[in-house]
Amino acid sequence: MQLWYSERHTQNVKFSIKVDKQLFSGQSDFQRIDVFDSKEFGRFLTLDGYMMLTEKDEFIYHEMIVHVPMAVHPCAKKVLVIGAGDGGVIRELVQYQQIEHIDLVEIDELVVEVCKKYLPQTSCCFGDERVHIYYQDGLKYIRSYENEYDLIIVDSTDPFGPGEGLFTKEFYGNCFKALKEDGIMVNQHESPFYDEDAIAMQRAHKRIVESFPISRVYQAHIPTYPSGHWLFGFASKKYHPLKDLNEIKWNMLGLKTKYYNTRLHLGSFALPNYVEELLRDVE
Amino acid sequence: MQLWYSERHTQNVKFSIKVDKQLFSGQSDFQRIDVFDSKEFGRFLTLDGYMMLTEKDEFIYHEMIVHVPMAVHPCAKKVLVIGAGDGGVIRELVQYQQIEHIDLVEIDELVVEVCKKYLPQTSCCFGDERVHIYYQDGLKYIRSYENEYDLIIVDSTDPFGPGEGLFTKEFYGNCFKALKEDGIMVNQHESPFYDEDAIAMQRAHKRIVESFPISRVYQAHIPTYPSGHWLFGFASKKYHPLKDLNEIKWNMLGLKTKYYNTRLHLGSFALPNYVEELLRDVE
Repeated sequence: MQLWYSERHTQNVKFSIKVDKQLFSGQSDFQRIDVFDSKEFGRFLTLDGYMMLTEKDEFIYHEMIVHVPMAVHPCAKKVLVIGAGDGGVIRELVQYQQIEHIDLVEIDELVVEVCKKYLPQTSCCFGDERVHIYYQDGLKYIRSYENEYDLIIVDSTDPFGPGEGLFTKEFYGNCFKALKEDGIMVNQHESPFYDEDAIAMQRAHKRIVESFPISRVYQAHIPTYPSGHWLFGFASKKYHPLKDLNEIKWNMLGLKTKYYNTRLHLGSFALPNYVEELLRDVE
Repeated sequence: MQLWYSERHTQNVKFSIKVDKQLFSGQSDFQRIDVFDSKEFGRFLTLDGYMMLTEKDEFIYHEMIVHVPMAVHPCAKKVLVIGAGDGGVIRELVQYQQIEHIDLVEIDELVVEVCKKYLPQTSCCFGDERVHIYYQDGLKYIRSYENEYDLIIVDSTDPFGPGEGLFTKEFYGNCFKALKEDGIMVNQHESPFYDEDAIAMQRAHKRIVESFPISRVYQAHIPTYPSGHWLFGFASKKYHPLKDLNEIKWNMLGLKTKYYNTRLHLGSFALPNYVEELLRDVE
């Protein structure tokens, strides 16, 4: 027998992973949740059939969405994480002793429960005493905060289904408001390669540019996401992602990373011309 | 009817493209050659079933294998290209007026003929008077040259089948010999992500490090290659790929590129930790 998981990266492109077995399949109030075991990628989680993370390459996404802003902000103490029910962002954040408080707002409690049970590699650190979980819609949660956070990490799904509200102008404006005067927001920013992803990426970028004085985009190689070329948005009230990177200070922390390093931090903001053009078109 | 081209990126991972129709299928003395038309990627060429190039993303590979060394070497005039029967490397090279002579050594004449007929986007510049084509095995060709070339570009297939000899210590040693005293060799260097590719990448790197005093690796996002995370090797007798990059001079040339720029040049040498470790293991 052969069992294959397939995801359509576009209508005309399919990415398939040979599966050993399906460990979980369930329907929450928000989405279908599945967990599979595979030889190539270890365990992997899909939501509504879309790849969220695999044990083999999740380190890339989670390191890049956390360490880039943390190496720029001089002393982030209070952090808000939206989405991220798998716990990967939390695992990276709790390594920083300076962080005093982490609020995690995840719309779907079942995602957290499933990840706690099947994906210990990412869900290992929910028990950290600084972590506070709220099962709410991030779009609603953020409305009531002002001048509260040093860093907001938007670890959303794609801009349709439960994640849709996290790509709106209202949401980015409220993130701006909820950040302190030197706060940083980082978000998963879709991909520039396939047309449909590129349009979503441009739409998000336009709205972030309208909300924040500093808005730059950086990239990483994430093999299990469409095209493998994935972007993150760095939006900030005060700090510049390159000029305000404190390489020595970050390296002095001695954190163990498999993807991120401060040289790569600088390099990841150097984008291909065609991506720069897509961004400029909406700036 | 649905027609899908599939490539196994590993035994457990499959990448599939919906095909409009097959334009060519033939067997040369060396390999099976196929050309397809697709909505997502335009025309694409496969050799022995492996993806070589698509019209949608070939610019990334060809720009990165040509402009990186050309922006470092102060005045490359005589260039040897091994493989590259599709013409993409030639198309990028002939944009440099300083180049006086290009030798192209391709083992398989049928690849050139097929690309001339079906892939004008890459094969457009074979007619340039500076281009001289030799239908020979690059491994044999290179043996008889000494102190001849400013730049050698090794645009090989994977390290099995016809491309195997282009990953040997003998070959790299002969490239060193065929280069002038300030010559540069650039090669396609496989991918660090899937185990089998990573082993091939390490093997190539070890042999290049043993042959050249300066040997660095750089990366690009190539969506249609396994994992989308592709590496190139920069091996040199004298020039350093970062310290000797002349950004102003290259930008003064006014070449139009869709991927390459000199900021990205610098960034592309900043590798993830896990890739650095794979390289260090064999250095």
